[in-house]
Amino acid sequence: MKFYMGPRQWPETIADIQSAGHELVQDIHQAEVLVNTTPNPAKISVPDNIKWVQHCYTGVNQLIDAGVIHDVPWCNTAGAFATPVAESALGLLLSVAHHHKAFALAASWSVARELDQSQAWVYPQAAPKRLAVFGAGGIGKEFIRMVAPFGLHITAVNRSGTQVPGADVTLAMADAAHVWGEADFIVCILPLTPDTAGLVDAAIFRAMKPSALFINVGRGGTVVTEDLVDALRSGEIAGAGLEVVDPEPLPDGHPLYTLPNCTMTPHMAASADVAKYHIGAVFNANAAAWEAGEEMPTRVDVERGY
Amino acid sequence: MKFYMGPRQWPETIADIQSAGHELVQDIHQAEVLVNTTPNPAKISVPDNIKWVQHCYTGVNQLIDAGVIHDVPWCNTAGAFATPVAESALGLLLSVAHHHKAFALAASWSVARELDQSQAWVYPQAAPKRLAVFGAGGIGKEFIRMVAPFGLHITAVNRSGTQVPGADVTLAMADAAHVWGEADFIVCILPLTPDTAGLVDAAIFRAMKPSALFINVGRGGTVVTEDLVDALRSGEIAGAGLEVVDPEPLPDGHPLYTLPNCTMTPHMAASADVAKYHIGAVFNANAAAWEAGEEMPTRVDVERGY
Repeated sequence: MKFYMGPRQWPETIADIQSAGHELVQDIHQAEVLVNTTPNPAKISVPDNIKWVQHCYTGVNQLIDAGVIHDVPWCNTAGAFATPVAESALGLLLSVAHHHKAFALAASWSVARELDQSQAWVYPQAAPKRLAVFGAGGIGKEFIRMVAPFGLHITAVNRSGTQVPGADVTLAMADAAHVWGEADFIVCILPLTPDTAGLVDAAIFRAMKPSALFINVGRGGTVVTEDLVDALRSGEIAGAGLEVVDPEPLPDGHPLYTLPNCTMTPHMAASADVAKYHIGAVFNANAAAWEAGEEMPTRVDVERGY
Repeated sequence: MKFYMGPRQWPETIADIQSAGHELVQDIHQAEVLVNTTPNPAKISVPDNIKWVQHCYTGVNQLIDAGVIHDVPWCNTAGAFATPVAESALGLLLSVAHHHKAFALAASWSVARELDQSQAWVYPQAAPKRLAVFGAGGIGKEFIRMVAPFGLHITAVNRSGTQVPGADVTLAMADAAHVWGEADFIVCILPLTPDTAGLVDAAIFRAMKPSALFINVGRGGTVVTEDLVDALRSGEIAGAGLEVVDPEPLPDGHPLYTLPNCTMTPHMAASADVAKYHIGAVFNANAAAWEAGEEMPTRVDVERGY
């Protein structure tokens, strides 16, 4: 198919798409497909000649809210960033467990014994630790694959309760209320929808173990930030690792920056620098389905919100 | 066998040893074996009735230097902490790769784009990254097992060149000089011996890629600390993750504390709080060998230094 990529053009992605036989055009009015590289709704316009749009990110709630997605099908990149986001999540889990930020902020060996005694281990000592993965779709499956050598007991939670490979137990969201309180490590990969907005709040943090580590690599808005700050300050939970947060950018001076038990990365596991290596394969699968008259694998459902 | 544990007694370890049929005595003069829980040579005395000693740590160079190891065999805990030290190493690698400390010290979203563009990914994007493991014994094997899901190209380096399971290539130390310059990620797990003291110096850092991440979970003294500081400041390498450092404790005000590209943990992957879960199994294997008149698996060789 003839595709236009903009506002930015990524050579790595273009090469991947061209290798499947598609043709890059430099005038959007000559294209059949728009490969859209900006997450900012204000910068997006879709001329009438465009038959469908390949968006270069996974989250589309901002675009839906702005009314950008209409008339033609949009595809997102669901699942494409599974590996980098899983890597980000595992890094945050280990970093929080072993007090990297706390030691960096203390900048003194005098805290060594205290950090040693309060650090968490992911591998089993007396018994396997319990991991809960909320929102276990493509990223969750990849995270479970990546963390397999640690010998955790894994509970996966998803919308349907359909068994997730590698998990010891899979539960539907509606049946998983007790899971928050049983897990040593909680990894949230929930999309942001009306059902999940502000889902992780004071009551949920109160239910968690005081030793629990909470990791969020889904969407910042699924967590009530003020409640997380309170839970971290009061010791209601032991630590957090956040690749996403509400709001983004987090304003300078926000307490999460200086809490020693909250490690953060500034939403950079599925950025443009990562995306350029992954979009080509997603586009090619969607284009093949389009040409065959089949459902495109990552087509956005506006009603569902992802 | 009759064993005495001191100066501290760890209930978890005692239970593991008793479960193999050995008998705890509370008077060291009634014991056949001493389970020694202090790394401090000045606090150790070995009465004549002791037939062998189970030391509760891996590093014994301080004990050898102090002349504590003589007359009866001493066993260390080589390999016992393989899993926690491997976990520590993987956590440091991911934390440095994704700029956890740099973002914590910046405490501002304004650095997000810069951090994104300079972060390293362990999983393969264009091609598999190259990992070199120097000192690939028990810990190295465990690290390689733990990092397997990331799809790295792995070069293991050990004394003999004996093939390490899971490594793509294994080289003897004498044949590995070129490896420092080829690796994206270098994990050092070298023991401290006359051959390795100060081995990683300015010349070695100069040979490394500017994008290299250097992780040390072996012994601090294998690295020339001042040279590491220079390499991190000048950009000769991209980052370091240190579970061990020379000297320990690292004095307050040392530049490594504030370098954003140097993540540290204060030597807490094989501490007493970790050791108590692992010593029992080591003791039981050594005791079984002793009783059978065989070589004890973790007996220290004073000449070799470990």
